[in-house]
Amino acid sequence: MTSPASGLFGIPEMTQVWSPQSLVRRMLAFEAALARAEARAGIIPASAADQIEAVCRGPLEWLDIDALFAAARGAGTPAIPLIEMLNEHLPDPVRGLAHWGATSQDAMDTALVLQMRDGIDILVERLLSAGTAASTLAERHRHTLMAGRTLLQQALPITFGLKAARWLGLIARQVPRLQEVRLRATCVQLGGAAGTLAALGSAGEQVTLLLAEELELVVPDMPWHAERDRVAEAASALGVVAGAMAKIAADVMLLAQTEVGEVAEGGDSGKGRSSALPQKRNPVDAIMALASSRLAVAQVPVILGSMLQEHERAAGGWQAEWEAVPALFGFTVDAVDRVRSSLSGLQVEPQRMRANLAASGELVMAESLTMALAPSLGRRQALLLVREVAGRARENGFNLRLAALADERILSALSVVDIDAALDPENYLGSTDTYIDRALAEFAELLPAERKPSHE
Amino acid sequence: MTSPASGLFGIPEMTQVWSPQSLVRRMLAFEAALARAEARAGIIPASAADQIEAVCRGPLEWLDIDALFAAARGAGTPAIPLIEMLNEHLPDPVRGLAHWGATSQDAMDTALVLQMRDGIDILVERLLSAGTAASTLAERHRHTLMAGRTLLQQALPITFGLKAARWLGLIARQVPRLQEVRLRATCVQLGGAAGTLAALGSAGEQVTLLLAEELELVVPDMPWHAERDRVAEAASALGVVAGAMAKIAADVMLLAQTEVGEVAEGGDSGKGRSSALPQKRNPVDAIMALASSRLAVAQVPVILGSMLQEHERAAGGWQAEWEAVPALFGFTVDAVDRVRSSLSGLQVEPQRMRANLAASGELVMAESLTMALAPSLGRRQALLLVREVAGRARENGFNLRLAALADERILSALSVVDIDAALDPENYLGSTDTYIDRALAEFAELLPAERKPSHE
Amino acid sequence: MTSPASGLFGIPEMTQVWSPQSLVRRMLAFEAALARAEARAGIIPASAADQIEAVCRGPLEWLDIDALFAAARGAGTPAIPLIEMLNEHLPDPVRGLAHWGATSQDAMDTALVLQMRDGIDILVERLLSAGTAASTLAERHRHTLMAGRTLLQQALPITFGLKAARWLGLIARQVPRLQEVRLRATCVQLGGAAGTLAALGSAGEQVTLLLAEELELVVPDMPWHAERDRVAEAASALGVVAGAMAKIAADVMLLAQTEVGEVAEGGDSGKGRSSALPQKRNPVDAIMALASSRLAVAQVPVILGSMLQEHERAAGGWQAEWEAVPALFGFTVDAVDRVRSSLSGLQVEPQRMRANLAASGELVMAESLTMALAPSLGRRQALLLVREVAGRARENGFNLRLAALADERILSALSVVDIDAALDPENYLGSTDTYIDRALAEFAELLPAERKPSHE
Amino acid sequence: MTSPASGLFGIPEMTQVWSPQSLVRRMLAFEAALARAEARAGIIPASAADQIEAVCRGPLEWLDIDALFAAARGAGTPAIPLIEMLNEHLPDPVRGLAHWGATSQDAMDTALVLQMRDGIDILVERLLSAGTAASTLAERHRHTLMAGRTLLQQALPITFGLKAARWLGLIARQVPRLQEVRLRATCVQLGGAAGTLAALGSAGEQVTLLLAEELELVVPDMPWHAERDRVAEAASALGVVAGAMAKIAADVMLLAQTEVGEVAEGGDSGKGRSSALPQKRNPVDAIMALASSRLAVAQVPVILGSMLQEHERAAGGWQAEWEAVPALFGFTVDAVDRVRSSLSGLQVEPQRMRANLAASGELVMAESLTMALAPSLGRRQALLLVREVAGRARENGFNLRLAALADERILSALSVVDIDAALDPENYLGSTDTYIDRALAEFAELLPAERKPSHE
Repeated sequence: MTSPASGLFGIPEMTQVWSPQSLVRRMLAFEAALARAEARAGIIPASAADQIEAVCRGPLEWLDIDALFAAARGAGTPAIPLIEMLNEHLPDPVRGLAHWGATSQDAMDTALVLQMRDGIDILVERLLSAGTAASTLAERHRHTLMAGRTLLQQALPITFGLKAARWLGLIARQVPRLQEVRLRATCVQLGGAAGTLAALGSAGEQVTLLLAEELELVVPDMPWHAERDRVAEAASALGVVAGAMAKIAADVMLLAQTEVGEVAEGGDSGKGRSSALPQKRNPVDAIMALASSRLAVAQVPVILGSMLQEHERAAGGWQAEWEAVPALFGFTVDAVDRVRSSLSGLQVEPQRMRANLAASGELVMAESLTMALAPSLGRRQALLLVREVAGRARENGFNLRLAALADERILSALSVVDIDAALDPENYLGSTDTYIDRALAEFAELLPAERKPSHE
Repeated sequence: MTSPASGLFGIPEMTQVWSPQSLVRRMLAFEAALARAEARAGIIPASAADQIEAVCRGPLEWLDIDALFAAARGAGTPAIPLIEMLNEHLPDPVRGLAHWGATSQDAMDTALVLQMRDGIDILVERLLSAGTAASTLAERHRHTLMAGRTLLQQALPITFGLKAARWLGLIARQVPRLQEVRLRATCVQLGGAAGTLAALGSAGEQVTLLLAEELELVVPDMPWHAERDRVAEAASALGVVAGAMAKIAADVMLLAQTEVGEVAEGGDSGKGRSSALPQKRNPVDAIMALASSRLAVAQVPVILGSMLQEHERAAGGWQAEWEAVPALFGFTVDAVDRVRSSLSGLQVEPQRMRANLAASGELVMAESLTMALAPSLGRRQALLLVREVAGRARENGFNLRLAALADERILSALSVVDIDAALDPENYLGSTDTYIDRALAEFAELLPAERKPSHE
Repeated sequence: MTSPASGLFGIPEMTQVWSPQSLVRRMLAFEAALARAEARAGIIPASAADQIEAVCRGPLEWLDIDALFAAARGAGTPAIPLIEMLNEHLPDPVRGLAHWGATSQDAMDTALVLQMRDGIDILVERLLSAGTAASTLAERHRHTLMAGRTLLQQALPITFGLKAARWLGLIARQVPRLQEVRLRATCVQLGGAAGTLAALGSAGEQVTLLLAEELELVVPDMPWHAERDRVAEAASALGVVAGAMAKIAADVMLLAQTEVGEVAEGGDSGKGRSSALPQKRNPVDAIMALASSRLAVAQVPVILGSMLQEHERAAGGWQAEWEAVPALFGFTVDAVDRVRSSLSGLQVEPQRMRANLAASGELVMAESLTMALAPSLGRRQALLLVREVAGRARENGFNLRLAALADERILSALSVVDIDAALDPENYLGSTDTYIDRALAEFAELLPAERKPSHE
Repeated sequence: MTSPASGLFGIPEMTQVWSPQSLVRRMLAFEAALARAEARAGIIPASAADQIEAVCRGPLEWLDIDALFAAARGAGTPAIPLIEMLNEHLPDPVRGLAHWGATSQDAMDTALVLQMRDGIDILVERLLSAGTAASTLAERHRHTLMAGRTLLQQALPITFGLKAARWLGLIARQVPRLQEVRLRATCVQLGGAAGTLAALGSAGEQVTLLLAEELELVVPDMPWHAERDRVAEAASALGVVAGAMAKIAADVMLLAQTEVGEVAEGGDSGKGRSSALPQKRNPVDAIMALASSRLAVAQVPVILGSMLQEHERAAGGWQAEWEAVPALFGFTVDAVDRVRSSLSGLQVEPQRMRANLAASGELVMAESLTMALAPSLGRRQALLLVREVAGRARENGFNLRLAALADERILSALSVVDIDAALDPENYLGSTDTYIDRALAEFAELLPAERKPSHE
C-alpha cells in the first residue's frame, strides 16, 4: 500500500529494492538460476535453460505487472501468476520447464532473501556513513566539556566527544551484527510443494547446491518454508538498529532544545523552518528518525508473531511478512539515514555546553567534591556534608564553591587549591579519553580501506 | 513507502483516501474553509476568501506534488511547502492571507480527521456487506448440524447457523462502535503555532466554530495538537475490527482444512489454485485476512505509544501517525473485505459437517447422556459413569450408543428410547435458535432501509 | 509470574483485584450466583443453592490454592480443579450440583468481568484524583506565563495553566470513556460446553438473565467465549489511558530538566535522591509513569492479536488474556497513580518559566510582531521582514526589541508603544483563558458532589 | 506484579532467577566483587573488601526486602536503598566504602546481566530437552507417512519424521544463537554517575577489568548505561525462540484436532480433561505454549522501543526493562518447557496419518502423477490433464487411481504399474531422508557428551 507520507519516509535505493518490479526481477532471477542448476544436473536440457534464462534476465515487455498483481490477489501470491505468465511466454518445447519441481514459495522466499541481502548492504553503507559523522564529532569534541545528564538532570561533567563516541560504539556494534545476519539469513529456498523436493527425485540436494551456487546464496540444512527463524533473526537485528537510532536522535533532539541549545541541525536550505515562527530551527532529521524508529520497531513483533506457521506452509503468517519485512527495511534505513544527515551537519555549541555546565553553580561537581573529601572524612560523611552544603547553596542561590569555602568542616579537610581542583570539571573526567579512543579504533576497523579518513 | 506486496493488500477506495493527492486535497479543503470562516468572522476580506477557495477547490495544475514532498523532507511536514506554494500561487493582494493564524499541524490534523471520516465510512460499508453475508449463512444454516469445537476438540453439537450468527454478532457490534468513534474523533484542529490561537486575538473561538461548520466537523473543547486520545481511540476501534476479522477468518481456514472439509471458498476463476498441486483449493481470502489482521493490529501500539507527545507539538510521535494511521486503515479494511469475499462465496458442506459430527462415534453426545443420567444418578456419578463408558467405547472402537446399551447401570436408569433421544444432536442445541434470532435482528437494525434483504 | 521489580510497579488495591485469591473468590461468586439463579429457575433445589452459596461465600479453609494452581497447569485452567474441589467439598446430595450446565470458561470469564469492573472503578478513582491535581494547577497557574514549545523549540508564550488544562482535558475525557466500557464490557458469560447452553435445555435464557441479575452484570446478546471484542475494547480504552499518562509524564520530565527547571516533583522524604549525586532531584514519578505506560501499551496488541480465537473456544488466545489483562490493569493504574503523585506534589517555578521565556531575547514573540505588522505590510512581507530582523538579532546577540527598534521599516509601520505591546507575551495569549475555563468546567461535572472542591 | 495466572505460567527455576531476592543477591554479588576489585587495585583496603564481601555473600537477616522495595518506589530504583542499607549495616570504618565510585545503575545492570546469563543457561537446557524429544520422534517416525499440508490443505506426502526433524532443526538453531548472545550480552556494567568512572580517577579501566574477572563477565568497550543494544539483541534472540515454539505448538494443536487425530498429548493424570466433556483430551501443553509465546513476543518491542534512552541514563526506557526482561525470560522458557512436555509425551497415530493421507482418494498424489506424465506429455500438458482428471475424481467421488485408469491419454503414456508407482506415497518423498539425517546430526553435535543418546 502507499500512504500520504510516502514521500517523507524511506530512501530511494531501499524503496527500489522492495518495489514490485524488484520482487518480480528477483523471482525471475530464481527461475533463471533454477533452470541453469537443473540443466547442470541433467534434469532439463541446457538449451531450455538458455531460453528460460534469456527471458528471465532480458527486458520484461512481455510481462504486465499490473495484471500480475491483480491475478495475485486471487492466487494468494504473485509467484503463481508470474510463473504462469512466464511459461505462457516461453516457446513451446520449453514451456512448462521453467519452475520445474519448485513451488511458488521457493521463488518468493529466494527473492526475499536476495532483497534482504541488498537491503542489508544499503543499511550497512548508511550506518558506516552515520558512524563516520559520529567519529568526526568524537574526535573533534574530545575535550569539549558538557554536562552529563542522568534522568535528564545534570549529574557530572563529560565531554561531547564521549557522547559522540558512545553513539559511535552503538553504531559500530551494529555493523558486524548485520553482516553476520546477512550470512546467516541468506539461505536459498528450494523445497517443492511440501518441502521434500519430491518432484526432483534423488536430485534434490544436488539441484539445491547448484542453485545456491548460481545465486551466491547459502545452502540451508533443509527447506525452511514454515520455519522462519532466520527471517526473524534478521528482522530483530534491524529492530535493534532502529532502536539504536532512537537513542541518538533523542539525544540530538534534547540537546537542540531552546533552553539547552548545545547543538542545532545544519541550517541550510530552509530545513526545519516553521511556517509561522521565523525564529525556529527544528531538528527535523532527529524528529523524523524518532518517528521512523517507532514504525520500524513495530514490524518486529509482526514477524516474530508470524513465526506461528502451520504445517508445511503458513496460512497468514508468511503472507504478513510480505508487508512487514519491506516496511522494516524501509523505516530502519530511513532512521539511519536521518541520523546520518543529522550528525553530518550538526552544529555544536561548545560555549553553550560550558555555560550550561556552569549554570547550576558547580552543583554538578558535588560528587567530585565528595570524592575529594572522602579520604579524610569517609565517603558517607563526605556525602552527607556535601549534600548539606549543596542544599545551602541551592537555597541561597550562590554556587557550590562559595558554599564550600564558607564551610569550616570542608576547609579543615581541603585547601582552597584542592577545592578548586575538585570543582574543575576538566579534572573529573575519569576514563573519558580511553573510551573515545576505543570507539574510534573499533569503528576504524570496520571501514573499508578506501573510506578511512586520512588524518594529516 | 510502497512495498512489493502493494498490489496484494488494500482496496482501491481506501488507498485513494490515504493517497498523497488526497492528503493535499484535504489540506487545501482546510485552507479554503479557514479562509471562508475568517471572512465570515471579518478577519480577512470576503473577496480574498473567494480567491483562496477557488484555488484550493479548483484544478491543481499549479501544484507540483513531487516537489512538494521533496520539500517536505526538509521541512518535516508537507503542510509547510504546501502553504508556501499556495501563497506563492495566490495573486498579490491575497498572498499571505491563506492559512492566516493557523499552524501547519492545523492543516495536517484537520486533513487527517477528514480522511479518517471517509475511511470509517468505507469500513462501515464493507462491514455491513460482510455482515450481510454472515446473516445469509446464519439464516440458511440455522439447522445445519455440526460439531462445536473447544480447544479444537469436538465438544458438543452446534449448528453452522449459530457459528455464523456469532460472526454476525461480532461484526454487528463493530458498526455502532465505529460510528461512535466517527463522531468523537472527527474534531477540527485549529490552535495556531502553540495552541492558543494567539494570532486570531479574541476571535479564536468564533473562527473555530465557523471552520467546523464549513467542514461539518465537531468542535473540540480545545486544540489537541499533542493530546491524541481521540486518534488513539479511533485507532483502537479499528484494531478491534481487525482482531475480529481474524476470528472469522481463522474459523473459515480451519473449517476448510482437507480433513475437516466443511467449507470451501468460492472456487470460480482460479482463486486459490496451486501452481503445482491441481487438487488444492486454498482459502485465499481467509488467509489474506489473517495476514492483514496481524499487520493492522501492529499499528495500534505505534499509535498508543506515540501519545507520548512533548509539550505543544510532538517530536516523533505525531510524525509516526502519518504512516501508522493510513496503514491501519488500509490493512483493516483489507481484512474486512477479504472476510466479506470469503463469506459471500462460501460453499458449505452440510453432509461433511454431519459426517464429522458422527465420526467420533457419538462421543460428542457424552455430555447429553450425562445430563440425561444426572436426574437419577446425580451429576457427579453420571459424569464418572459416562466417562468410563466413553473410554470403553474409544478403546474398543465402537460407538457411544453401543457402549451405553451394553452398560447395565445406564440401562437401569434410561430406556433405549431415552438413550437414543439423549444421543440425538438435534435434541441438544439449547438456546441456539434464540441466539441466531437475536443476531439477525440486531444486524437488521443496522442496515439502512435500502439494504435490508426482502424475505418473501 | 512475579518479577524482581514487583514492588516497584502497581498499586496494592489493583494488585489485590487481580490476585489468585481474588480470581478464586470471583469464580466462587459465579458459582454461588449460578446456583441461586438455577434454584430460582427451578433447575436445582433451593436448599442446594443455599449450601453452595454458603460454601462459596464462606471462609476458604477447605481450599488449597497452591494445590489448585498446581492442578491447573495440567488442566489448562484453574476453573476445572476449582469446580472439582468445590464439588468434592459439598455434602453428598448437593455434590455435583454446583456449576450445573456451565463450562469452566463461564466461571473464568465471569470472574474476569467482575475483576475488570472493580479494576475500572479503581482506575477512574485515580484518574479523578490526578484530574483534581491538574485542575488545581490549571486554576492556580492560569496566568503563569511560560514558553509554548513545539518540536521542543520555544514557539509562542502560553501559560502553565493552559498546559495543565490540556492535561486535565486529556484526563477528563478518559473517565466517561472508561465508564462506557465498564457498562459495555461487563457482560456475564454463560454458554456451557459449546456456547449453546444445551445442558439447560430451554431454560438457558432464563438462567442467564437471573445470573446477570444476581451479579449485577449485563446480559449479552449471546455467549462470547470466542468473540472477545468487548474485552479488546476495554483493553484498548486502558491503552489510551496509559498513552495519555505518557504525555503528561513526558511534559513533567522535560520541564524538570536541569536546564529548564520549571517544575520539580515534591521533594520530601528523599524521593528522587541519587546515591552518588547530592544535588540531584529526579522526577521519579514521571519517570516511572513513562515506564509503566510503555509496559501497559505493550499488552494491547497481545489482546487484540488474541482475538484470533478458534471455533467455540480458543487454543492460546484466550489463555494469553490471563496474563495480559491483569498486566494491563496493573501497569495502567500505576501510570495513573504516578502521574497523580507527580502532579499533586508538583513544585512550579513561575520565575524560571518567565526567565526561560525571556531568555531567547523575545524571539518567541516574533509571530506576534509579524501579526502586528501584517495589517500594514501584508502577512507575507511581515513574515519575511520579521524573519530578517530576528536573524539579525540572533546573530548579533541582542534581543528582538532592539533589533525591531533599529529597523526603519518596522518603525514606519508601528509606534514604539505598538512594538512593545506586540512583544508583551501577556497580550498574545489568544483563547488561553477560554480553554482553561472549559477544561475546569468539564472536569467539575465528572466529580461526584462530595469530591467537588469548594471555592470560597 | 503478580497475576491471577501466576501459577500457570513460568517454571520455578526461572522464576527464582528473576525473583526480588535473586536481584538483591546479584546486586550484592556486584558490590562484593567491586570491593574485591577495588582492593586489588589498591583503592580500598583489603580488609574492607573482606568485610563487605562477608556481608554481601553471607546470610541476609540484616536486610528487610519489603522495606527495601518500599523505599525503592520513592528512590526510583532498588539499588539506592540497598546500598544505603548495606552501608548502614557495615561497621564504622568500612561504612561508605561499599559501592565506591559506582552508580546505582552499575549494580542493577550487572545484576541484570548475571540474571540473563543464568536465564539463558536454563533456556538452553530446556531447549536441549525439547530437542531430544523432537529427535526421538524424528528417528522413530522417519518412515511414518503422513500428509504434508500447505495452507492447511493436503499437498504431498511427507513423513512425520520429517516434520519432527524440521522442529528439531528449528530448536537446534536456537542453541548456538543463545550461546552467542550469552557471550555478547553479559558485559559488566561499571561507569559511575555519568559513565566516565570519574570517581575512580585513572583507575577506572583497571577496576573494570578486575571486576569483570571476579564475576566472569565480559569487559565492554565502554559503559553502556544508555546504549542497550546488547540487552535488545538478547531479548530479540529470546523472541525468536518464543516464536519458534509457536510453530511447533501450532503443529501439535492442529494434528491433535478431533478430525485429524494424528497426535495426542500424553494422557496420564487427567491432563487436558474437560470438566463437562468426558471424551475430550485437550493438548494443554501446546495451547499454553501458544499463549506463552504471544506473551513473550510482546515484550520484545517494549525492549526495542526502550532503546530510546536519554543522554547518560534513561528516564523510563531503562525502568521498563525491569519488568519486560523478566517477563520475556519467564514466558519464553514456559513456551519451551511446554513444548518439551508436549513432545516428550506425544502419542503418535501412524494409522490415522496413513488414513488421512488416503482419505482424499490419492488426490494428494496428483503432483506425482503429473511428474510421471511430464516426460511424455510435457509438464504443462501433464498438469492440465491431471487437473482435469482430479476434478472428475473429486466430483464423482471416486479416487484418483480409478479416474486415471479411466483416462485414455494417461493410459497411453503410462502403464498400470507406472501409474501405481506414481500413486504410491513411499515413492514420492524426495530428499526427506537426507533432511532427517542432517537435523539429527546437527542436533547431536549440540549435546554435551553425557546427554547423547546411546544407540545400540
